[in-house]
Amino acid sequence: MNVEGKHYRTIWLNEDGIVQIIDQRPLPHKFIIEDLRTVDDVARAIKDMHVRGAGLIGATAGFGMYSATLEAPEDNFDSFVQKAATKMLATRPTARNLAWAVDRQLAVMGQGVSSKKKIEQAFATAREIADEDAEFCRRIGLHGKKIIAEISNKKQGARVNILTHCNAGWLAFVDYGSATSPIYAAHQDGINVHVWVDETRPWNQGAKLTCWELGMEGVPHTLIADNTGGHLMQHGMVDMVIVGTDRTTRTGDVANKIGTYLKALAAKDCGIPFYVALPSSTFDWDISNGLAEIPIEERSSDEVKFVTGQNRENQPETVLIGPAETPAANYAFDVTPARLVTELITERGVVAANEEAILRMYPEHRDG
Amino acid sequence: MNVEGKHYRTIWLNEDGIVQIIDQRPLPHKFIIEDLRTVDDVARAIKDMHVRGAGLIGATAGFGMYSATLEAPEDNFDSFVQKAATKMLATRPTARNLAWAVDRQLAVMGQGVSSKKKIEQAFATAREIADEDAEFCRRIGLHGKKIIAEISNKKQGARVNILTHCNAGWLAFVDYGSATSPIYAAHQDGINVHVWVDETRPWNQGAKLTCWELGMEGVPHTLIADNTGGHLMQHGMVDMVIVGTDRTTRTGDVANKIGTYLKALAAKDCGIPFYVALPSSTFDWDISNGLAEIPIEERSSDEVKFVTGQNRENQPETVLIGPAETPAANYAFDVTPARLVTELITERGVVAANEEAILRMYPEHRDG
Repeated sequence: MNVEGKHYRTIWLNEDGIVQIIDQRPLPHKFIIEDLRTVDDVARAIKDMHVRGAGLIGATAGFGMYSATLEAPEDNFDSFVQKAATKMLATRPTARNLAWAVDRQLAVMGQGVSSKKKIEQAFATAREIADEDAEFCRRIGLHGKKIIAEISNKKQGARVNILTHCNAGWLAFVDYGSATSPIYAAHQDGINVHVWVDETRPWNQGAKLTCWELGMEGVPHTLIADNTGGHLMQHGMVDMVIVGTDRTTRTGDVANKIGTYLKALAAKDCGIPFYVALPSSTFDWDISNGLAEIPIEERSSDEVKFVTGQNRENQPETVLIGPAETPAANYAFDVTPARLVTELITERGVVAANEEAILRMYPEHRDG
Repeated sequence: MNVEGKHYRTIWLNEDGIVQIIDQRPLPHKFIIEDLRTVDDVARAIKDMHVRGAGLIGATAGFGMYSATLEAPEDNFDSFVQKAATKMLATRPTARNLAWAVDRQLAVMGQGVSSKKKIEQAFATAREIADEDAEFCRRIGLHGKKIIAEISNKKQGARVNILTHCNAGWLAFVDYGSATSPIYAAHQDGINVHVWVDETRPWNQGAKLTCWELGMEGVPHTLIADNTGGHLMQHGMVDMVIVGTDRTTRTGDVANKIGTYLKALAAKDCGIPFYVALPSSTFDWDISNGLAEIPIEERSSDEVKFVTGQNRENQPETVLIGPAETPAANYAFDVTPARLVTELITERGVVAANEEAILRMYPEHRDG
């Protein structure tokens, strides 16, 4: 997508074949490109959230596995690559795309072929994962746009108000985003859209990233505290909710950024449609009960106790918001049960959030 | 309650008869006592949230009316006092206790008596309002404690986990608090309680004030992002919710800090009791439909875009969390419909959140 008029993806190889990313931590105040030269660089970038978001975690892990093949010693190649895979899998426990990308890389590196061949395969697969992510997100936009257009028609062209939580934007994927892709597509078609952006404590992905993205694309939006969405829905100020997901069960339960469940409850209570947009790479086909089976990542309590932003001298600054001695808990995701999800928007189309409908759309996963 | 071992109320008259408050803005990092010498001082202190919270806004307005009588010129006494009332009523539109205290002061200043007499009446009434607020909150504690004790018994003494939103603590009243009063009473009785404290963006009353209060009283607590409560409830980590209210309809709808409605929905969905604690001064007996009839205060967008805390040099610092040009909306309260409220805890006892039950407890308001 667009950064000051220039097209970017969130991850790419530069002319020298080095993996580069946008370091998302200093956004929106500073735009910094970072090299990821080793598997350790990649693991750190994922764990410390230089990159984050369902699709981008997958794509970064894909490139990380390629990095691993470049680093692996000739006499210990497979074992090095396997260790790199284990290291990466440990970084973000809830993210489905992580395992999906790592497994895809391991599966493709055939047995009994030369390490040179494996490097080539890993290179091709890393690019494939990234390209596929971008393409799937583009298609999500086309399918989701129709839903927005329908609401716009019903409202006779009046502003369509869409609430989103966290950043399921292009910064969370390779391009387009999941939740944002229908919004970008609708905006480009001239549909009058406006986005309510949940700031998304504790990490503030909404305030930092979604507002920045939408601003760069010229999409009208308003930042709100996470507490606000219910009030807006009660007063007819939200026409639809679209969020992303970090892991989706075969039954349609979705694990997304902490607080998503609360917005889904409010949407249900107020009769507002609640959509979840996802490339199929976020499906975990092995599980049926999101609440019981999806591991929920716990992160540092400092992310709750401290807030980072830009001070009056335009310098990055971190401030303590409560008593220094207060303990804090930081669960990064929650699970929204399928019963609260109106429909899923995938690269294949729009589908009800239940196992039968999902498997009709993805029949190749009938057996897990 | 307790500040470093010394007993404080939130508002009092010093030896020279000057109104003093705890300036709540620099808490928990600095404890500063402020003089309120004029009506304008009082109005600014309420509007800019040096003081805040249902009962304390009422008590401060009560003392503000007393200040007005001291300032009023002999030849224009009644008109000056009336203007002071109007000024104070404009500061916080949602807060019911504001109008309640101002009206009580105006009603008590009899017609045709000397200004000296009116000053005496205003002085007595200001103290009465404050004393009554403290006493009512103390009684709320006794009634609410029984509910906590019951849960503790059912859990055979295991930790009772209570979630609260915003600060309905002693800092929001004159003493004890509303939502916190049952917690303090239970803790003092040796019941094993633990409080999940919502940080309460945008102003962070939970992180700044509730954590500080609970810490001073030695009550175990954990700070969480506002997004977290639903997840905790889904996983059996919350036994009850207690919040306060800034305005309560005769039918039991409650306007409380933005985000309360979302927690009430989650409690309902998870089968967890949701209590609202209030002195009867927060009832607005004239209205029956909270969503339609309670005005919701909108505050500066800067409260959303900027976060204030303490930097690494222990100095107060304000940081911008999103793009400078992003617009933000800041609705300060939302309305939780009575259907989501398990029971109200008032100074007279525990009552179901419906008109019939409420009027049985407050029969003097049958006719509004």
